Amino acid sequence: MKIQLENVKPREIETRSFEIITEELGEKELIPGTELIVKRCIHTSADFDYAENLCFSEGAVEKALEAIKNGACIVTDTQMAKAGINKKALAKYGGEVYCFMSDEDVAEKAKELGSTRATVSMDKAASLNKPLIFAIGNAPTALVRLYELIEEKKISPYLIIGVPVGFVNVVQSKEMIMDTQVPYIVARGRKGGSNIAACICNALLYMIDNERDYWK
Amino acid sequence: MKIQLENVKPREIETRSFEIITEELGEKELIPGTELIVKRCIHTSADFDYAENLCFSEGAVEKALEAIKNGACIVTDTQMAKAGINKKALAKYGGEVYCFMSDEDVAEKAKELGSTRATVSMDKAASLNKPLIFAIGNAPTALVRLYELIEEKKISPYLIIGVPVGFVNVVQSKEMIMDTQVPYIVARGRKGGSNIAACICNALLYMIDNERDYWK
Repeated sequence: MKIQLENVKPREIETRSFEIITEELGEKELIPGTELIVKRCIHTSADFDYAENLCFSEGAVEKALEAIKNGACIVTDTQMAKAGINKKALAKYGGEVYCFMSDEDVAEKAKELGSTRATVSMDKAASLNKPLIFAIGNAPTALVRLYELIEEKKISPYLIIGVPVGFVNVVQSKEMIMDTQVPYIVARGRKGGSNIAACICNALLYMIDNERDYWK
Repeated sequence: MKIQLENVKPREIETRSFEIITEELGEKELIPGTELIVKRCIHTSADFDYAENLCFSEGAVEKALEAIKNGACIVTDTQMAKAGINKKALAKYGGEVYCFMSDEDVAEKAKELGSTRATVSMDKAASLNKPLIFAIGNAPTALVRLYELIEEKKISPYLIIGVPVGFVNVVQSKEMIMDTQVPYIVARGRKGGSNIAACICNALLYMIDNERDYWK
């Protein structure tokens, strides 16, 4: 077999990947302070569209870092996103990750209301008496419900990571969140996913840790 | 606010999404029998590159369906991929999902060998006395180890889903798998992910179930 593997030590793979991403981004200008998040999304997807589609409200990153340091919890709309978040890193500051999608009461209520489990999950999250960050990588209906809860002043998240993926109401639901006064990180357009939602959470955590040597 | 949501019932969102994907694929020809898998990857990522980069060995889908019906188990290289697979659907045929990445013995051995946990996870999987499908969405080192285990005739998987994502040895590790005699579904190039690995497993499961009405 003639396939040649690059000789990179396990610990150096992430650093080398970020070097390649930085190289290929070339002259592309990213918003100062958002670079690690953008590059981590590209690292997670190998999709350079994230250098174009990620939108940050003014000061969103600083506010999110502050919230995490003060013990904010993260609510996801999939078990996949929950599985992908570095829960150990979050726990250092007192935060936990919640996902209510598999809860029986959520399934029952969604059926009763002819609604989605994602919608009902957001209502359940709104009843938590905790500082919250939402990481939504799948269900536009979750973002639509968050928009309503914000308008009704029933919820006031520290950050909404709005990165559902797909073809039905995904684009619109993200625009709705960008129309609120809540800090957001949104992947404008159709793209996103549970992996992207988790990776943005991890990027924020690693920015606090400042452990990764590719972060400058 | 002037953002207009499309009025689609929760149960119809997936069907409508697949209609849009089919429409936008237009005249693009997919390999007969692989359409649901390709479309589901696009559904999961909103990335039409999957219509180009997915490669199937001859008869891979049929062999995989047969293996699942006969109780094959799935091994993943991330907890995220495991979280994303429909374990209830798999359990109907007797299969389970395994991920050894968080196992203490795996972490210890990887440290001892200066190897990755993904590599050691594959060795642990090889010692299972079960029919196996591998769903690798993250670690090229997992695919490289699978290649070695196949060459050493220590393992004979029913299918390898080779869709790690990234920049270091990802492209090469996929080519190595395509160089074996083992049935494969590979996303050629840099793209893939735990979400793609899980979605290909689910596409296979739903093809057996034949419950989804977008499947023709």
